[in-house]
Amino acid sequence: MLTAAVIGTGFIGPVHIEGLRRAGVHVAGILGSTAQKSDDAAVRLGLPRGYPSLDDLLRDGSVDVVHITSPNRHHFGQASASLAAGKHVLCEKPLAMNSSESSKLVALAKKSDRYAGVNYNIRYYPLCIESSARIADGSLGKLFHVSGSYSQDWLFHPTDFNWRVLASEGGELRAVADIGTHLLDLIGFVTGQKVAEVFADLQTVYPHRERPDGGVETFSGKTAAPLPTQSVAIDTEDHGSIMLRFACGAKGVIWVSQVDAGRKNCLRLEVAGSKGSFQWNSESPNQLWLGHRDRANESLVRDPSLMGKDASRYSSYPGGHNEGFPDTFKQLFRDFYQSIENNVPTADVTFPTFADGHQEILLCESILTSHRQQRWVKVGA
Amino acid sequence: MLTAAVIGTGFIGPVHIEGLRRAGVHVAGILGSTAQKSDDAAVRLGLPRGYPSLDDLLRDGSVDVVHITSPNRHHFGQASASLAAGKHVLCEKPLAMNSSESSKLVALAKKSDRYAGVNYNIRYYPLCIESSARIADGSLGKLFHVSGSYSQDWLFHPTDFNWRVLASEGGELRAVADIGTHLLDLIGFVTGQKVAEVFADLQTVYPHRERPDGGVETFSGKTAAPLPTQSVAIDTEDHGSIMLRFACGAKGVIWVSQVDAGRKNCLRLEVAGSKGSFQWNSESPNQLWLGHRDRANESLVRDPSLMGKDASRYSSYPGGHNEGFPDTFKQLFRDFYQSIENNVPTADVTFPTFADGHQEILLCESILTSHRQQRWVKVGA
Amino acid sequence: MLTAAVIGTGFIGPVHIEGLRRAGVHVAGILGSTAQKSDDAAVRLGLPRGYPSLDDLLRDGSVDVVHITSPNRHHFGQASASLAAGKHVLCEKPLAMNSSESSKLVALAKKSDRYAGVNYNIRYYPLCIESSARIADGSLGKLFHVSGSYSQDWLFHPTDFNWRVLASEGGELRAVADIGTHLLDLIGFVTGQKVAEVFADLQTVYPHRERPDGGVETFSGKTAAPLPTQSVAIDTEDHGSIMLRFACGAKGVIWVSQVDAGRKNCLRLEVAGSKGSFQWNSESPNQLWLGHRDRANESLVRDPSLMGKDASRYSSYPGGHNEGFPDTFKQLFRDFYQSIENNVPTADVTFPTFADGHQEILLCESILTSHRQQRWVKVGA
Amino acid sequence: MLTAAVIGTGFIGPVHIEGLRRAGVHVAGILGSTAQKSDDAAVRLGLPRGYPSLDDLLRDGSVDVVHITSPNRHHFGQASASLAAGKHVLCEKPLAMNSSESSKLVALAKKSDRYAGVNYNIRYYPLCIESSARIADGSLGKLFHVSGSYSQDWLFHPTDFNWRVLASEGGELRAVADIGTHLLDLIGFVTGQKVAEVFADLQTVYPHRERPDGGVETFSGKTAAPLPTQSVAIDTEDHGSIMLRFACGAKGVIWVSQVDAGRKNCLRLEVAGSKGSFQWNSESPNQLWLGHRDRANESLVRDPSLMGKDASRYSSYPGGHNEGFPDTFKQLFRDFYQSIENNVPTADVTFPTFADGHQEILLCESILTSHRQQRWVKVGA
Repeated sequence: MLTAAVIGTGFIGPVHIEGLRRAGVHVAGILGSTAQKSDDAAVRLGLPRGYPSLDDLLRDGSVDVVHITSPNRHHFGQASASLAAGKHVLCEKPLAMNSSESSKLVALAKKSDRYAGVNYNIRYYPLCIESSARIADGSLGKLFHVSGSYSQDWLFHPTDFNWRVLASEGGELRAVADIGTHLLDLIGFVTGQKVAEVFADLQTVYPHRERPDGGVETFSGKTAAPLPTQSVAIDTEDHGSIMLRFACGAKGVIWVSQVDAGRKNCLRLEVAGSKGSFQWNSESPNQLWLGHRDRANESLVRDPSLMGKDASRYSSYPGGHNEGFPDTFKQLFRDFYQSIENNVPTADVTFPTFADGHQEILLCESILTSHRQQRWVKVGA
Repeated sequence: MLTAAVIGTGFIGPVHIEGLRRAGVHVAGILGSTAQKSDDAAVRLGLPRGYPSLDDLLRDGSVDVVHITSPNRHHFGQASASLAAGKHVLCEKPLAMNSSESSKLVALAKKSDRYAGVNYNIRYYPLCIESSARIADGSLGKLFHVSGSYSQDWLFHPTDFNWRVLASEGGELRAVADIGTHLLDLIGFVTGQKVAEVFADLQTVYPHRERPDGGVETFSGKTAAPLPTQSVAIDTEDHGSIMLRFACGAKGVIWVSQVDAGRKNCLRLEVAGSKGSFQWNSESPNQLWLGHRDRANESLVRDPSLMGKDASRYSSYPGGHNEGFPDTFKQLFRDFYQSIENNVPTADVTFPTFADGHQEILLCESILTSHRQQRWVKVGA
Repeated sequence: MLTAAVIGTGFIGPVHIEGLRRAGVHVAGILGSTAQKSDDAAVRLGLPRGYPSLDDLLRDGSVDVVHITSPNRHHFGQASASLAAGKHVLCEKPLAMNSSESSKLVALAKKSDRYAGVNYNIRYYPLCIESSARIADGSLGKLFHVSGSYSQDWLFHPTDFNWRVLASEGGELRAVADIGTHLLDLIGFVTGQKVAEVFADLQTVYPHRERPDGGVETFSGKTAAPLPTQSVAIDTEDHGSIMLRFACGAKGVIWVSQVDAGRKNCLRLEVAGSKGSFQWNSESPNQLWLGHRDRANESLVRDPSLMGKDASRYSSYPGGHNEGFPDTFKQLFRDFYQSIENNVPTADVTFPTFADGHQEILLCESILTSHRQQRWVKVGA
Repeated sequence: MLTAAVIGTGFIGPVHIEGLRRAGVHVAGILGSTAQKSDDAAVRLGLPRGYPSLDDLLRDGSVDVVHITSPNRHHFGQASASLAAGKHVLCEKPLAMNSSESSKLVALAKKSDRYAGVNYNIRYYPLCIESSARIADGSLGKLFHVSGSYSQDWLFHPTDFNWRVLASEGGELRAVADIGTHLLDLIGFVTGQKVAEVFADLQTVYPHRERPDGGVETFSGKTAAPLPTQSVAIDTEDHGSIMLRFACGAKGVIWVSQVDAGRKNCLRLEVAGSKGSFQWNSESPNQLWLGHRDRANESLVRDPSLMGKDASRYSSYPGGHNEGFPDTFKQLFRDFYQSIENNVPTADVTFPTFADGHQEILLCESILTSHRQQRWVKVGA
């Protein structure tokens, strides 16, 4: 049985711990931003230990895999150090703050013989895997066009605040980097096509936000008690639209928003091809819509007996027994840990790799350049 | 009681006739592309007469209003002649083939004291009127962003053919002009905001289509028997994405497609503002989704007792008794004919005017320029 | 061209007039409860004349068909007189106040050589016709079970009032007779099976309601200004459940309610058989859900190119162009008037006949007996 | 930290284990129907040990809680023995084979000072808790009527087989006992009202089914390879309808089916009261529909910031991050284990108790009696 340690005590760290437990992985301990926070989290989450420091964590010989769920600016350093210490690494997205860092991480991962993944969990909704498998099979024919959106409302009010709104903490892109990259990763995964060029137009609807004096955790602002605040200038985007041109000639468009009232965490994707079309919505993830011109449209329920073997393998419950957001973590972790256990050649792994994480950062950089220069930008050029 | 005559015997002409009858308007006759077609249509539709020619129609002193539902390239000539003959005119969209024509029509309409409307019927779904009224009331606060799409599959196969696919018949833009302008008109109507700049990327997925030797009517290709065909080069777009910048500072993006399998006639619109958001879909037109951050989202059923007076006035049935596509024609016609009957000052009419039709053509021209030059283009500049 | 006259100036009379106009039928005039009401309605609806009395209407030699949309207690007399006067009759449901009356009407209709229909309009939603045709084809296999409901909220408050709540005006059954019979008629039409036995349990949630001193029209109570009221004892049901046993051995259950907050006019039907299942909902009437065990479920859009010829024939618009409640009237009237024009043998007509109307009344009487005696009651026994 | 052991290696046993791990409970081992099956399951599920026998399990002093997920006929014996051994017990439903057994278990649980729960997990969908809390608050006013259904298709074909179809293994009621009791428990929980009387009509659509020679596990029949079979007479119901009368005077009706093509595991519940109504569907469990007469209907997303404290407490993820079927187990277990840890008085526990399990069995017995005698039967009389 493999053993994990988790860096990060915010919203997403505990989600990893629960997913690891479901996947049957032992979790040795957790690292927070201070030794005290590590210990508190360990107690709260029922873990054997809180690590005083990253060094302590890396020196723990029982730990096979390090999960990185800290703020974005720490990813590069923590991932580098973990690989150097001989650990496998599963990093939250984005993999790093820029493509210089992420390309180094790709190289470090390659040089090590360790497994290195990025947590693009949305791929692991079984009907996303099914979509990907069917498109690879040719069920949709030639790809015509793609559209999608990812919208939320947790930063809807100018009084909503989180470290992610600050370029210095989360990077110069926010909505695009936070949620847009999930959508872009999913588009690449489902269609099997690379985005070659982007054109972006971004928007900051609140040039100032109110920062609570004590700081707030992700997603907790909505229920937290009011604190004294100060006004902070914001230059990361609340909303943006991005046109896409795929290497295969298809075109598309996506938009993202973190100020869309009533949308709690809503990713929508539509793919149209010469033989049919697909639609999927993360708010009803157990349904896949299949559009047809010459016969009735279909609505496929997530059901292992109705999906192909790729998707069935990552679906644990019978049809109609809804699987949701937490299940995607479990399934990604199952894939990652089984790759380790089965010693799968790194060229053959199916989880999202550091190379995928690097590709998303190249996309983000192209999007930012496009937005600033208002022209089409080739991805990675 | 006012009397109408209708030009056009294709799909949309009979839709007008039915709408006129529901609105209690007498229909004196119909004009087709030949005297024979006029007569055949008159018999088929139970009308008093088929006109041999436009001149004959315009000489019919009983006719108050001319409805123009012929192919686009005839609109300018027929509308000009009708106004000159002292008739009120209700023209199908697009108003003309280009903004030179449409600006002339706006001037002609102004000079005459006749009422001149363009049939942007989608505005007349009662929940679209309700959305418009609520946004005008400030219910959505400051406009943040708009997104929408209009997709169909009736030109999905390369063997689907209609005069609209030929630039010479329908104009250089097709999907954008045909359905995109409905969406753009609706966006303008609902938000009350002008699109100031556009950026477009269009796509022709089938550079050739098979033209049946005998020609086909709109929307009838799907069920028609196979005919001998010849391959015709196509340069009008099947799909396109358009970014929008509004005069008020808000941004948006829309896409249109006529090759989207499974979407029969699907217009979707989302509007997000600082106090809430709206979503409406023409495939379930009796529901309006209202998004909220701090309380439950709402789903407003079209119900005169739950809508404001603007929308209730154009809703004929109690809540739950679905109104659909044909009802929008009836309601637009009611508005148009009541304006005539009540002698409403032209500055105060609520139906879509020639000025609105001209604005849509300016939008189309800007979109085409943007697509060709791949840059932002100011609308009407 | 055939000519109609309409009896009744309430909610449903004008709906008939609009449907007749759409179907291309001339409407000669209207009859209200007083000569003045007749005249007012004629002016309001743009009709040639208001009839002073039923005799005047029946003496109008131009009238081929009489539409009866008056309160239920007048149906028998008006239908009898109309048939006697040599008119064809299309009567609103219920056909009469009891099965004694309705059986006499069936006999009168048979003796005359006139066409005699009952306006079970819901059958004419094209996807209901499609369901019926597919079940007749064997697509669902052996019938297993049926479930359905019809719910509204227009009598939700104890201050909501209408003549229908009074047994003396509308009959001893109310929700069952008003809306339940639509559902039962639809079940019979779609499944092609007769209900053999019923078991019912009914409920009057408001034993008293407030009657406005001046009376109110159907469906108008919700927006009407408050009037002085008096409390009236109510013995008609607001809600009820009915178990069904079909002659073929299948079973089912339905419920109806007129006090179900948020449901404006919602009929839902599900039919399960040995090869598949169907679900349809009047609030989204352009979608039919088809359930499958061994492949993806389907969602069939109302689209003439995807439906069989029975349904396509009664669908006027292309797929995606929503048809709604008013369209069902037009389509039923088209069927009725074409039967007259084409002199279809009365055994072969497809519209709902007086025999169907009689069957619904037998069902109602069995339901009332079952409710009172709390036992299974054979229908028509 | 508390420690559990699980009896049962079929579909639901592993679901418990995963839920226990998520809830932070240590699982000491598992017991199958043979020592070999125990060991195999322990290896497969990564558990410390497989128990050779129930005695061995009960002698394991580290075990605080026994989870019973074996076939129904073993529940009584295993639950009695576990309580006698001083263990807390969490038993799958139904609690026992009949009310004689279940009443003894209620007494045994009372006499012991152990916590004794039944796994009615559906209560733990957060929006079901929210519904219950709001009804308790008076948000729905006086209860008018309830309707619901629970339908599946895993026994759709006569070749589908499972021990549950045999009265000798699962009890005389099947669909009602298996899934109907979940619905009835949910109705009691959400409305806070007791069902006083029932009237039932049940149906066995397949009087014979094909039993595979080797036996099959629950829910696995759909994908299993074909085996030689023998025809077995079936007397448990595939489908049934049940009318309900509540102690408070409200009425209702439910139906259940295990032969409803396309429904994988679909529980639907509607509750109508004098102030509003609720609708919830297990296939979209993160949405609660709230019906209103005089304002727009609402759609409440599962979101801790929009729900009351009862529901928020059992919701682990932010709004929009779908929780599903497996999450209900985790939340029920959290409630159960926190009751133990916090030494909550047994009168105050919020999890479903043996008394609730006994009540469901009384309901089943009344339903069976009613079906056999075709009369209303008082529950528990």
